[in-house]
Amino acid sequence: MSSPSDPTLDERVAKVLAGDVRAAARLMRDLDDERPEAFEALKRLYPHTGKAAVSGVTGLPGAGKSTLVDQLVTRHRARGRTVAIVAVDPTSPFSGGAILGDRIRMQRHAGDPGVFIRSLATRGALGGVSRSTRDVVAVFDAMGFDEVIIETVGVGQDEVDICRTAHTTVVVTAPGLGDGIQAQKAGLLEVADVFVVNKADRPDADRAKAHLEAMLELDAPAGDRWRPPVLATDATTGEGVDALADAIEAHRAQMRASGEWARRERARQRAELTERVLYLLRRRAEVALERTGGVPALLDALERRETDPYTAAASLLDALD
Amino acid sequence: MSSPSDPTLDERVAKVLAGDVRAAARLMRDLDDERPEAFEALKRLYPHTGKAAVSGVTGLPGAGKSTLVDQLVTRHRARGRTVAIVAVDPTSPFSGGAILGDRIRMQRHAGDPGVFIRSLATRGALGGVSRSTRDVVAVFDAMGFDEVIIETVGVGQDEVDICRTAHTTVVVTAPGLGDGIQAQKAGLLEVADVFVVNKADRPDADRAKAHLEAMLELDAPAGDRWRPPVLATDATTGEGVDALADAIEAHRAQMRASGEWARRERARQRAELTERVLYLLRRRAEVALERTGGVPALLDALERRETDPYTAAASLLDALD
Repeated sequence: MSSPSDPTLDERVAKVLAGDVRAAARLMRDLDDERPEAFEALKRLYPHTGKAAVSGVTGLPGAGKSTLVDQLVTRHRARGRTVAIVAVDPTSPFSGGAILGDRIRMQRHAGDPGVFIRSLATRGALGGVSRSTRDVVAVFDAMGFDEVIIETVGVGQDEVDICRTAHTTVVVTAPGLGDGIQAQKAGLLEVADVFVVNKADRPDADRAKAHLEAMLELDAPAGDRWRPPVLATDATTGEGVDALADAIEAHRAQMRASGEWARRERARQRAELTERVLYLLRRRAEVALERTGGVPALLDALERRETDPYTAAASLLDALD
Repeated sequence: MSSPSDPTLDERVAKVLAGDVRAAARLMRDLDDERPEAFEALKRLYPHTGKAAVSGVTGLPGAGKSTLVDQLVTRHRARGRTVAIVAVDPTSPFSGGAILGDRIRMQRHAGDPGVFIRSLATRGALGGVSRSTRDVVAVFDAMGFDEVIIETVGVGQDEVDICRTAHTTVVVTAPGLGDGIQAQKAGLLEVADVFVVNKADRPDADRAKAHLEAMLELDAPAGDRWRPPVLATDATTGEGVDALADAIEAHRAQMRASGEWARRERARQRAELTERVLYLLRRRAEVALERTGGVPALLDALERRETDPYTAAASLLDALD
């Protein structure tokens, strides 16, 4: 374990702050492996965070999220901004299970030092993805990336929660994906700051857009609160993506002006704090459960239906205290 | 709170055991609300569980899971078996966000006392869905339902974990949904006991099936272990659903014969036990965090970047001890 005056640690932190891609990638790996010195490094990076603008891009599989993110990257780069991507979608071409060909789209950014892509698996411990995402965003932020884009599939509890870590959330739908109804059911309407109907070249795109607008009309915000616009894009050709980049910037400007940015930051911090406390508790409980050794006997008792999971869990908790 | 000799509690438990639908629905609501007397009732039901055969039906949105489940219900009923459904898919017509028309398909089972449907929202506390699902399955099991079907959208960490609570997991794909590649990326291949290519009337269905078979070939199990079959169905007409019901039964028979059933039951119990201990810890931590009152000051410090979330979380944990 690293002591506070560890010169290697100082060096690692300095490299990440200088934007060293290799040092950052190693740190992210070490954070995934939960190495104590990696957490120590993250602590030191923390004072340098809070500058990046974080957007979330979410939607059902098949909406064309990855192609849209690819186009957004191009727009941000054209505007002179550096971009980092966190892909937490298991069906994303950026993430682990990608097959050959899938990655081709992003290849054009491969040689660009202003673009960094990090994939996260959504397999693993409960709450692990959300923690990993926050860690990776913090590292990107400290490295000095202007834009951080989190791409996540918009189905599932954890995935929707991840959206809440972004300043601006873009919900992507496409004609034939239920015209926003699937998104509504998935709880995505409430987290959306900007809607995109992608694949706008399809014949039923206008209808899908009108339908989504009508749904939003029903629950339009009062007064001068931000009203999520519905944009049409064709990510394959890039049509409409400039307007999307503009809408994201407009949302940010309005959030800063209204004080909403500060409120979201605080809510985000609160959620992160609670999450980390629970994570530490969980780790502690796992170690303690391992040590008690009472689990096999309880499993035998459960098998014979001599006890029930509630009573068994309570007795394990007593043993932990 | 109910004492162990509470006559009302005895009566509630007796009603649920007798299959009283209203008493069961009320108990499930009370379990969702985390009422102590509901947990007490569940404890008493527990000795009566362990008889139901639990299947999971999972897959990406658009694969036709709900229609397939509807058809499976008809098959089970024709074989004289009672069926309970737990729908944990936010995009499912059975669940909360359903729109008119969606529910029509299941209406034909509406008057059948041998069919009970319970929808669970996937919104809410981390790990909450998985706990609720286990509770609802336990109540159905105690009520004496022969079959319990868990329908869940096959994307997202929690959703895939829910599959692990079933004895048999059916993974549903459809032509045009990536030919199994999306399912692979979502981590569904490893949890599948039976594969279904639904919408088999589509021209590219044969290709999708062949593709999935080729993928499975690459990682076929050794020896006499269960080899997941790939079936074709057309849930709209019901074609192939009898074969699916047969495959589920064949899987069960093989599991029982090989001892795999007992192994899965034990793994399931272990997971449930760990989950419940963590759940209790989480509840305890939330109450304690509420009480410490130190959170606002820490949030201020975080905002000024005077501390970091790791240090802040550790100090909160110290305050809890």
